[in-house]
Amino acid sequence: MNASDTKALSIGVFDSGVGGLTVLKALREAMPHENLVYLGDTARLPYGTKSPVSISRYACQATAQLQQSNIKLLVVACNTASAVALDALRQQMHPLPVIGVVEPGATAAVAARPGGKHLVLATEATVRLGAYRKAILDKDPQAEIDELACELLVALAEEGWNDGAIAESIVRRYLVELDAASRHPDSVILGCTHFPLLRNTFATVFDDGVSIVDSASTTATAARSLLTDFSLTNEQNAAGTLRLLATDGVTRFARVGGQFLGHDLSAEDVTLVDL
Amino acid sequence: MNASDTKALSIGVFDSGVGGLTVLKALREAMPHENLVYLGDTARLPYGTKSPVSISRYACQATAQLQQSNIKLLVVACNTASAVALDALRQQMHPLPVIGVVEPGATAAVAARPGGKHLVLATEATVRLGAYRKAILDKDPQAEIDELACELLVALAEEGWNDGAIAESIVRRYLVELDAASRHPDSVILGCTHFPLLRNTFATVFDDGVSIVDSASTTATAARSLLTDFSLTNEQNAAGTLRLLATDGVTRFARVGGQFLGHDLSAEDVTLVDL
Repeated sequence: MNASDTKALSIGVFDSGVGGLTVLKALREAMPHENLVYLGDTARLPYGTKSPVSISRYACQATAQLQQSNIKLLVVACNTASAVALDALRQQMHPLPVIGVVEPGATAAVAARPGGKHLVLATEATVRLGAYRKAILDKDPQAEIDELACELLVALAEEGWNDGAIAESIVRRYLVELDAASRHPDSVILGCTHFPLLRNTFATVFDDGVSIVDSASTTATAARSLLTDFSLTNEQNAAGTLRLLATDGVTRFARVGGQFLGHDLSAEDVTLVDL
Repeated sequence: MNASDTKALSIGVFDSGVGGLTVLKALREAMPHENLVYLGDTARLPYGTKSPVSISRYACQATAQLQQSNIKLLVVACNTASAVALDALRQQMHPLPVIGVVEPGATAAVAARPGGKHLVLATEATVRLGAYRKAILDKDPQAEIDELACELLVALAEEGWNDGAIAESIVRRYLVELDAASRHPDSVILGCTHFPLLRNTFATVFDDGVSIVDSASTTATAARSLLTDFSLTNEQNAAGTLRLLATDGVTRFARVGGQFLGHDLSAEDVTLVDL
């Protein structure tokens, strides 16, 4: 395969469900000419409560499916899979690049608040793995980090109840688990792809001036840099194509996913695949 | 196999996760001498958002695993699987009996409020399948039925936030989706095994005098009748044994499951199985 072939290929985006569509949306905005193919492993979601061995196996199977669509870059738009399976996925994609959501989020948080106090909001698995803690301390040994598992916010975002009194009281209830000082961080890292939908709620609950670090947009920026560095950008003038694949429940994927992608989807827009 | 062998066998209980432990708890209370084996298919939960074809396949695989433990009765402690897969599971278990949670819940609601107005609270899949509606109308064509999908309550119960202002405001928010008259039913059917944990919240939100129909206890009563009718009861004097199997995440299963079962569990109490 020569360089010009490579440029015309797609960016593959993988998540356990619909949450990664926030990353897909950011990728489209950052690179409107790129072809994108998204796979949501809805048959086996949520990854957040599963064991590392299962998560790695599922991620590798999903990636094999995306490889059949001729991808030039894999974006792992799932915090749990980014925390657990990145090495395995890099082996599988070699020599093509793989980018997860944890690293760009950690980089952005450290850049925004060097030596600062960071609060990571994530799923149980991401917190248990301490992925953000490791990634942040690696870049900034002076950083202070708290991590808080907020499973209920996933269901809240899928229900579309992103703003208002219920969302705010749930976030405040989670914060009770932290000591008083930790409730006033310099940066809040949205360590789950569902959480950008709750951005307004976080802005209301946390102090004025807090940096809200969204892995979706930071990952899109990192992906664009990577493609540029490796001369893999698509230079077509037309808008890039978009393919959506799901392993189960295409009707629900379309209904809930539309909220994440920012425009309506119908079940016909989503192709069912079996891994 | 002769009759006395059969009596010494176990009751198999199957759910997609920990929710069915509310049914297991009711079965233990109703039949303390019976041996019980529970399988939570945590690797593939939740079933509530998956397609009927996947749900049936998963339920049959889980049942095959329980059959290896020599069961004399299968209790499908999962509303979604009860709604979708009961016929397939009856074929697989033949000539041994299978009981789901939908039928006993519907029977109890109709008995409590003949000709009444019933509100079914359930997951999206159970509502979409209309399983309670069909089962109630079959017994009482005069009944009025509303069904409401309340996905967020599943996550709420797993988080253990069963009582208080947040739980109440979430239930009230769901009720807004109904017309005003439907918010005052004669009976509220807890059509998801997670929901008995929220019983106090429902009692607060709904009118005084409403019947709250809990599939867990009604299913246990139905299971006991069935074993008696078929002379399959265990007549040992010792307390029955309990085995817990899960397909993933035994640590989480033990932590969250303890709340559902009503006493602490440790990961060592749960055996990991691969379907």
